[in-house]
Amino acid sequence: MNWQETLTEYAAGFIEGLVHSGVKEVVISPGSRSTPLAMLFVEHEDIQVYMNIDERSAAFFAMGLSKASDHPVALLCTSGTAAANYFPAVIEASLSRIPLIVLTADRPHELRDIGAPQAIDQLHLYGRYVRWFTDLALPESGKEMLKYAKSSAIRAASVAKGVLPGPVHVNFPLREPLVPNLQQPFHPDSNLSYPHISEGYLNIPLETYKEIADKCSTIEKGLIVCGNIDKPGFQEGVLALANSLGFPVLADPLSQLRSGTFDKDMVIDCYDTFLKSEGANEKLKPELVIQFGGQPVSKPLSLFLKGIRESAELLIIDGSGGWRDPNRAGTHMIHCDETVFCQQLNQLVEKKDGSTWKRLWTDLNRRTKNIIKSYIQSVSDMEEGKAVSLICDLLPPDCTVYIGNSMPIRDMDTFFHTNENNIRLMANRGANGIDGVVSSAIGAAVHCRPLFLLIGDLSFFHDMNGLLAAKLQKININIIILNNDGGGIFSHLPQAKEGENFELIFGTPTGLNFEHAAMLYNGQYTKAVEWEDLTVSIREAASNEGLNIIEVPTDRARNLQVHRGLWEQVSREINKYLQSDEIC
Amino acid sequence: MNWQETLTEYAAGFIEGLVHSGVKEVVISPGSRSTPLAMLFVEHEDIQVYMNIDERSAAFFAMGLSKASDHPVALLCTSGTAAANYFPAVIEASLSRIPLIVLTADRPHELRDIGAPQAIDQLHLYGRYVRWFTDLALPESGKEMLKYAKSSAIRAASVAKGVLPGPVHVNFPLREPLVPNLQQPFHPDSNLSYPHISEGYLNIPLETYKEIADKCSTIEKGLIVCGNIDKPGFQEGVLALANSLGFPVLADPLSQLRSGTFDKDMVIDCYDTFLKSEGANEKLKPELVIQFGGQPVSKPLSLFLKGIRESAELLIIDGSGGWRDPNRAGTHMIHCDETVFCQQLNQLVEKKDGSTWKRLWTDLNRRTKNIIKSYIQSVSDMEEGKAVSLICDLLPPDCTVYIGNSMPIRDMDTFFHTNENNIRLMANRGANGIDGVVSSAIGAAVHCRPLFLLIGDLSFFHDMNGLLAAKLQKININIIILNNDGGGIFSHLPQAKEGENFELIFGTPTGLNFEHAAMLYNGQYTKAVEWEDLTVSIREAASNEGLNIIEVPTDRARNLQVHRGLWEQVSREINKYLQSDEIC
Repeated sequence: MNWQETLTEYAAGFIEGLVHSGVKEVVISPGSRSTPLAMLFVEHEDIQVYMNIDERSAAFFAMGLSKASDHPVALLCTSGTAAANYFPAVIEASLSRIPLIVLTADRPHELRDIGAPQAIDQLHLYGRYVRWFTDLALPESGKEMLKYAKSSAIRAASVAKGVLPGPVHVNFPLREPLVPNLQQPFHPDSNLSYPHISEGYLNIPLETYKEIADKCSTIEKGLIVCGNIDKPGFQEGVLALANSLGFPVLADPLSQLRSGTFDKDMVIDCYDTFLKSEGANEKLKPELVIQFGGQPVSKPLSLFLKGIRESAELLIIDGSGGWRDPNRAGTHMIHCDETVFCQQLNQLVEKKDGSTWKRLWTDLNRRTKNIIKSYIQSVSDMEEGKAVSLICDLLPPDCTVYIGNSMPIRDMDTFFHTNENNIRLMANRGANGIDGVVSSAIGAAVHCRPLFLLIGDLSFFHDMNGLLAAKLQKININIIILNNDGGGIFSHLPQAKEGENFELIFGTPTGLNFEHAAMLYNGQYTKAVEWEDLTVSIREAASNEGLNIIEVPTDRARNLQVHRGLWEQVSREINKYLQSDEIC
Repeated sequence: MNWQETLTEYAAGFIEGLVHSGVKEVVISPGSRSTPLAMLFVEHEDIQVYMNIDERSAAFFAMGLSKASDHPVALLCTSGTAAANYFPAVIEASLSRIPLIVLTADRPHELRDIGAPQAIDQLHLYGRYVRWFTDLALPESGKEMLKYAKSSAIRAASVAKGVLPGPVHVNFPLREPLVPNLQQPFHPDSNLSYPHISEGYLNIPLETYKEIADKCSTIEKGLIVCGNIDKPGFQEGVLALANSLGFPVLADPLSQLRSGTFDKDMVIDCYDTFLKSEGANEKLKPELVIQFGGQPVSKPLSLFLKGIRESAELLIIDGSGGWRDPNRAGTHMIHCDETVFCQQLNQLVEKKDGSTWKRLWTDLNRRTKNIIKSYIQSVSDMEEGKAVSLICDLLPPDCTVYIGNSMPIRDMDTFFHTNENNIRLMANRGANGIDGVVSSAIGAAVHCRPLFLLIGDLSFFHDMNGLLAAKLQKININIIILNNDGGGIFSHLPQAKEGENFELIFGTPTGLNFEHAAMLYNGQYTKAVEWEDLTVSIREAASNEGLNIIEVPTDRARNLQVHRGLWEQVSREINKYLQSDEIC
């Protein structure tokens, strides 16, 4: 694809996204840098173009259009001070809550802040007066980038029309030559899916529910994916819906669906392991997925969802009006309270009987769990996978577990299985940092007792000062440090092959003896060097007062070996099963 | 003073500041909120007012005025989107480097972000396109606030004309009623001093040097104040100048003027102690002060400089073009390399002979030092003042001392006296935080050896994780922790009288035994519970390898008692001396 084709596809894709979102009018001020967008806007048959020479007037004119039509209106200008002339209208639109989509053409990155003509710093130009700002990538070809351009436009329009409507700002860097190929058609019917936004932000209309209910009724191969979500009533609501629809529920450890006395018949908790198998991936392709909560921990699940983008619909339900779709797999973005959504939909669907689809998932899940359990039984020396598995089995029936990021949360995904206890799981999964986890857990321990923090040694070190709060405020907490002396996760990543400086740059062993940290803060300390030690420590922990640190020394190489061994065995046995006559 | 008088004085003061800085023209767009400034601008006989209805045009018109006249031009508009209309010209002026002073009237704070008419968020409205932004206080009466208003205007003009000229933005909140009293005169000849800005940013012209030299020659009672400054050549330059002028040099511990083989005849190092005496304050009033470097640590010095604002000239020399004048005592702000300034001026002044003025300062300094030394001798139990004094005496002749903030830097000011060693002092005195000091010192220790960090227990705790770098990278550092188990400085402050919750909110004892921290990071550890222990530890420290921690346990109440005792004794003896016949 030559440059002109690339430019055209990308810019046209963006415009299609706007049209798809109900944008019907654009107000353009003449300029050079904005050429590709201007020429393509004029070309689009569903777009009405208004030219307005003065950008200040243009923006206020657009506001009038939007106010009267109740549709978001786009604005387009060239780079430089032209964009600054929109500022008064952007402020007025912000305060009077009128949806405007401000498109500012920009110089490419290499011509910024270097004295080039008409190149000003347009990033965050309108400060906090816009509801959303994004600086687009320079035009590139390919399906992924076309999808990015389209969905950026859709998102811009969605935010502009959101619960607090107002202006949004999309900065559009463009390299010369700027003239698009007008022979290249638009692709309004492109099967490249992109999200439909629910009408009625946070209050979606009954018709939408009915449409979804009708669709779900005709579909056998449906799934529900629950990421990190901890809202009262949601668990009951989603499981009732899953039962009615006959859709298995892929439940992230932070979905709070793995532990509780509710019926867990539909809950799938070993998908992270069996979705590593290609055979399973092939057999399990759904037609429809309903997703709740934050991005699940599981990478195989992420790849699985990415792999069905062309074939399945994905409804993302977000009760806080965000845009959690890093796989760009969503076909519908539904801004609605998650519990309300489950309850409303459940009233409208007819209960289905058990299906082969559901059996396939639950069979695979049960078999995988059995393999995990027997494999882990066979591990003799201290190792993290088995440690986490053992800890999960030993936890008291009523407790809270705060999980460290990096490896611990991933191991919980593998080894924390459905149970009849009442175990609440917490983690810092907003930005997934290893920092501040000790303090967060100690804060949570004020309200949740007993509380276990399961954390790696680097993350523990990073927030060791946080232990002072436990000492001074006499907070009870059990901290289990999985100490492999460094960054265990890097051994699983491609950089592990960089032999020479791996330990220096990634491994970063500290060689610390955490017994001293325990003593510094008057904590109890146990080093679990045998499985028996760990068992005893965990059993005693629930009734401990104050700060209690259990260190589990492990070896990074051994951890890697055990994890790999487990995954290989599961893949082998699952593939054998899938090829057997046992399944239809 | 009634509201109208307050409003008028404050707004007129601001305008006088502009006029003083060479502003001759203002472009005003009509509006209500800007009424007091608009009416007073018109009233001022040295100001030419141009009315321009459209703020966008007004700003570009002002730019033309400024471009052609080479003077900064002021702009004035009312609150709301009016201000946003300046944005295109602000950007153009920023990139083409034209000095503009943008004055935007604003609603008072209580009417912001609450849906009031014409009230938008004007803070940082022009983002990074202005060289400086300030949101002024609401008009208040009194000398201090008048000085604040005037000097804010002077600073705005100075920054606009700076080494990178451009627009500045002053947001001016105003409460109703808005009409000023036009019978109230301007005070262009007010003896309320405010800074004259040096011409020729960073390259001040020879005439300015000559003027300063002439002035210095006629003055006997001159002083040089050196705060935190560590630039090659400066020490020699400033001492040579001081010798020529016969001006004593008040040398902050971070001025690097207290230790070295250079002639320290002019160096005053006990001013923090004897300036606590009212008698000394009275006797020592200078006519002229030249100040270099960051704000000195000494609070008595700060008060002393504040006290001479009406009677003395204060030249602030800043080689980085900043505005370090928290006492608002500066009469001249000279942006010029400090060493160049000393050298140039020294060439133009004639060498004066020793004077009674110089003798008065050096006598007082010597007497104070003797009192400190004998007082400290008499202290028997472990106490911080004596500890710091002892440490200063024991330091090896070539070393670096990194000083913690809060009490340690203040104690160094009191107890680190001139010496023939070569001791370099460092501290984090940008924002004076107690955080990150351990890591900063360990970083410095990579290049400076031996290095001693002298730090309080809270500051040490705060950055304890920083010790890992010393362990892993095998960096040699001696850390002396003055451990009074909590925040010692608060005992010196008024909140110390709040008995009941003082320990909870301010004292914040941690009760930590830092031996565990030393062990965690494989450090050597000594607890100096007797003076003899401290002496031995410091003597051995210089040759130690790796991390070496010396903990000095002290008692906050005792520390306070000793400090107070010392100051009382100095005050008593100094006052006696000043009233005696020994001095003229």
